[in-house]
Amino acid sequence: MIDRLIEKIKKTGAPIVVGLDPMLSYVPEYIQKKSFAEYGETLEGAADAVWNFNREIIDATYDLIPAVKPQVAMYEQFGVEGMRAFQRTVAYCHEKDLVVIGDVKRGDIGSTSAAYAAGHLGSVQVGSRTYAPFDEDFITVNPYLGTDGIKPFADVCKEKKKGLFILVKTSNPSSGEFQDRLIDGKPLYEHVAEKVAAWGADCMGDSYSQIGAVVGATYPEIGKALRKVMPKSFILVPGYGAQGGKGKDLVHYFNEDGLGAIVNSSRGIIAAYRQDAYARFGAENFADASRQAVIDMIEDIGSAIAAR
Amino acid sequence: MIDRLIEKIKKTGAPIVVGLDPMLSYVPEYIQKKSFAEYGETLEGAADAVWNFNREIIDATYDLIPAVKPQVAMYEQFGVEGMRAFQRTVAYCHEKDLVVIGDVKRGDIGSTSAAYAAGHLGSVQVGSRTYAPFDEDFITVNPYLGTDGIKPFADVCKEKKKGLFILVKTSNPSSGEFQDRLIDGKPLYEHVAEKVAAWGADCMGDSYSQIGAVVGATYPEIGKALRKVMPKSFILVPGYGAQGGKGKDLVHYFNEDGLGAIVNSSRGIIAAYRQDAYARFGAENFADASRQAVIDMIEDIGSAIAAR
Repeated sequence: MIDRLIEKIKKTGAPIVVGLDPMLSYVPEYIQKKSFAEYGETLEGAADAVWNFNREIIDATYDLIPAVKPQVAMYEQFGVEGMRAFQRTVAYCHEKDLVVIGDVKRGDIGSTSAAYAAGHLGSVQVGSRTYAPFDEDFITVNPYLGTDGIKPFADVCKEKKKGLFILVKTSNPSSGEFQDRLIDGKPLYEHVAEKVAAWGADCMGDSYSQIGAVVGATYPEIGKALRKVMPKSFILVPGYGAQGGKGKDLVHYFNEDGLGAIVNSSRGIIAAYRQDAYARFGAENFADASRQAVIDMIEDIGSAIAAR
Repeated sequence: MIDRLIEKIKKTGAPIVVGLDPMLSYVPEYIQKKSFAEYGETLEGAADAVWNFNREIIDATYDLIPAVKPQVAMYEQFGVEGMRAFQRTVAYCHEKDLVVIGDVKRGDIGSTSAAYAAGHLGSVQVGSRTYAPFDEDFITVNPYLGTDGIKPFADVCKEKKKGLFILVKTSNPSSGEFQDRLIDGKPLYEHVAEKVAAWGADCMGDSYSQIGAVVGATYPEIGKALRKVMPKSFILVPGYGAQGGKGKDLVHYFNEDGLGAIVNSSRGIIAAYRQDAYARFGAENFADASRQAVIDMIEDIGSAIAAR
């Protein structure tokens, strides 16, 4: 899957990913009203509104981008119906030939990680039939449990040519509380990065590993250092835009080949119409605002890489 | 919720929790066949089989135990239909007045943790209506992102009197890979435990905090040490039984008041009928085997505590 991601990045010239993390408050009122008219003010209605919102954004941006990253929490908060909207979103993105990174941050003891891996990346057996329930291409994984919590995910990646992004240094303000603490003179995140490189060595695509890392845009010096620790691992970079990261801060997340990183923006794209810069589009043209925000983000990152 | 958990532990005399982590292979064939006859060999069929399996185990054990711990991965692997079985299981356990610990191990940046907290412990707003989608009483949470990833969960706990168990030292073989590494002379798990105590101080019930910790049964010396680091935090102890932990190893997870810990067994209870010790019950009486395994576990832990 990493090879397909790279192929799509080259084709679009856009090392970016659109985070499909819809809060209900981002969904324009006229879409909510239509869904509520059909399903009532129910979880089904909320999920339908979210799905319709996503669909329009996907339709307006899919030709410009290689990948999307739906954040499952935003769907899970609406219960079973929300999970159905998540599943529909993943399936629709596949129809549009987008690579789908499920931002699920799962991770557990071996047998439990195996169940998550089956549900999100692989397949489950039911009697004589086989199903791929959520069928993302990549998922994000939490490393706190160590190798045997990661291995079941890596095994499915090898078998099904899927991929992982493992949390190394997260974008949030308190990420340093544990991740930055020094162990034998090196921060915890660097130890995790070394493991990511080791796990990834056993799971190579053509030029990069199926196993990548998450390193937040909000810590550019750390991104620069970690780039060297995991030369064969793609870095998924959250925190661009609304969380404060800018294109010029991110050039060192990329390798010399111009590859090796993919930068996510969620709110900055999907709720672009609510920003001053895109207010001219209006709520009824929210998807056009998202398209323009994607174009601007590609330009910001592209020109920063060109200028380095 | 911690006060209700303690009240139920005192009433049952059973500081234990039954892990409802059904692999499809644990579900006796006659139950699978019945579900497949109704729904086909589909995800819906698998979810129905799991739900019927759970229901019989709950019916056979609920009067003996204070709490259950469904592991969401075992449901999530069957997609949307699996999540519906998870939700039905939680709701049915509430009908039986059981405390429900959702073993979800979620954890993300603040805004995302807030969505998980809403979906699992709190409620979401849809138009003028409010829903509590999964409505567990406690959930497990991963600490890797630090305070701002925990705070949204803690806020919901304070508002709704619900609770958390935060991963400190997990039961799996490789848990030490990061968790045992020394930072300023103390293992990472101890730093996390100190944070759990600090987060918990702001979230107290009558005698214990709403915020507890997960410490695996497989590391009894660490359990003994961590008991002192977090005197007001309940410890959820996985790894008893099938993973190797025994009652006598666990006495130091409890405080002098005989409280402070709750020991989970999953496979050892729900798949008891497949063990030699309970084979006499046969697959058709699997729930009676589970009941006997619960009685034996209560005796094992109770006598160990009495003998210390």
